[in-house]
Amino acid sequence: MATPGVETSAIGLLKRAVELDGEKRFTESLVCYQEGIQLLLDVLKATTDEEKKKRFRQRITEYMDRAEKLKQHIEAEKEAGRYHEQMKIENNSTGNSYEKVFGRFFDEQVTMVEVEDPYIRSNHQVLNFVRFCELIVKSKSKVQTICLTTGQDQGKGQEEKLSELVKNLEKYNMTLKVTYSASLHDREIRLNNGWVIKIGRGLDYFKAADGKFVIGFCDMDLRQCHETTVDIFHKKHSKSVGV
Amino acid sequence: MATPGVETSAIGLLKRAVELDGEKRFTESLVCYQEGIQLLLDVLKATTDEEKKKRFRQRITEYMDRAEKLKQHIEAEKEAGRYHEQMKIENNSTGNSYEKVFGRFFDEQVTMVEVEDPYIRSNHQVLNFVRFCELIVKSKSKVQTICLTTGQDQGKGQEEKLSELVKNLEKYNMTLKVTYSASLHDREIRLNNGWVIKIGRGLDYFKAADGKFVIGFCDMDLRQCHETTVDIFHKKHSKSVGV
Repeated sequence: MATPGVETSAIGLLKRAVELDGEKRFTESLVCYQEGIQLLLDVLKATTDEEKKKRFRQRITEYMDRAEKLKQHIEAEKEAGRYHEQMKIENNSTGNSYEKVFGRFFDEQVTMVEVEDPYIRSNHQVLNFVRFCELIVKSKSKVQTICLTTGQDQGKGQEEKLSELVKNLEKYNMTLKVTYSASLHDREIRLNNGWVIKIGRGLDYFKAADGKFVIGFCDMDLRQCHETTVDIFHKKHSKSVGV
Repeated sequence: MATPGVETSAIGLLKRAVELDGEKRFTESLVCYQEGIQLLLDVLKATTDEEKKKRFRQRITEYMDRAEKLKQHIEAEKEAGRYHEQMKIENNSTGNSYEKVFGRFFDEQVTMVEVEDPYIRSNHQVLNFVRFCELIVKSKSKVQTICLTTGQDQGKGQEEKLSELVKNLEKYNMTLKVTYSASLHDREIRLNNGWVIKIGRGLDYFKAADGKFVIGFCDMDLRQCHETTVDIFHKKHSKSVGV
């Protein structure tokens, strides 16, 4: 089932996995290792040259070992309550949709998400939050409750917009609780499987599109971003998470 | 690396593959077989129970055989110039983004795409076409030329909108050629790897969202659809394709 391009994609993903591994971006690296290994298995299946087969098998074993070690390392650090990983979204970079940045943390254990972000106010910011909720609906998580704490913008329809979303989410058996706070400072997303994601700019890290009828207007993976730092922690044993 | 849910997902995908197979929706079925088999391989790797391992191996072999036969059948029908598959998008169904409907046809051989659709006119229709171009940009295809033939709507800014897209696509080294025609009837997408996709409603098969701040406003996989029929042909040897 493998085409010539599959090998190139596999190599690209595994190279990226090794890079991310070196940068201690372990959860991201693990996703790349796993996807890269899958592709390399496809290539192996389609290869008939015995010499090549042997080489591929060796590489696959090496990468699987490293992925397994990485997984154990992440688990150990999580158990010890000290897991920390940092990713930097570069200025003008693309490929940073919410799916790419948050998707891997929404496993089947998550039932509750807390979002603290002072700027879910203007049109495009509420739409960012809609996109974040769409990610949750599409994920394999079993989220029933989303708690949003944000700043209030009086007289600009913010409450109406968020009420529309609250009502709509009921159809998906999800409760969205909105709390307004004037004293918020941190921008933080907490999942009740223990993952905590702090983003310098909150959800509003995308640049405006160059126009309305351009590539990247609809697909946020193709949208350019502002420079921002994402810190990822795991706090399973901490009391700050959960209701 | 497998969690309990992976087995459920694998079974779900393979069940869907068998259903689609029975409905002669072969290219769709193949995607489901391939993804399901990959997941089942993950489950196999994580299983220690020898009895279970044996059962999984047997199932994987069976599904791989069927997928291989399907692939050969598709190839043979393509070679004979008579491949035909039909999918029906049901009224109010979701999960029919352009990626899901067209994604699998954009392989590395495609360099040119022709779209005939009389209704790329209003705002939301031009945005549909933007989404279609975003799919191309994100795919592994090497598309350099997109030819759009559509009807003309004078005085509603249609030309300006499409010009914005033409200019923007230049940044991606892609040429968009727009031709206006008053006599178009068919809605058809032709790829120069031979695939021809006819959609009853053209690209405009999504229903309007229930509001602006609702699930499915941004992510078209979550948007409800109008009922429409998609006919998929392969015409490698036909003269109607290619420039």
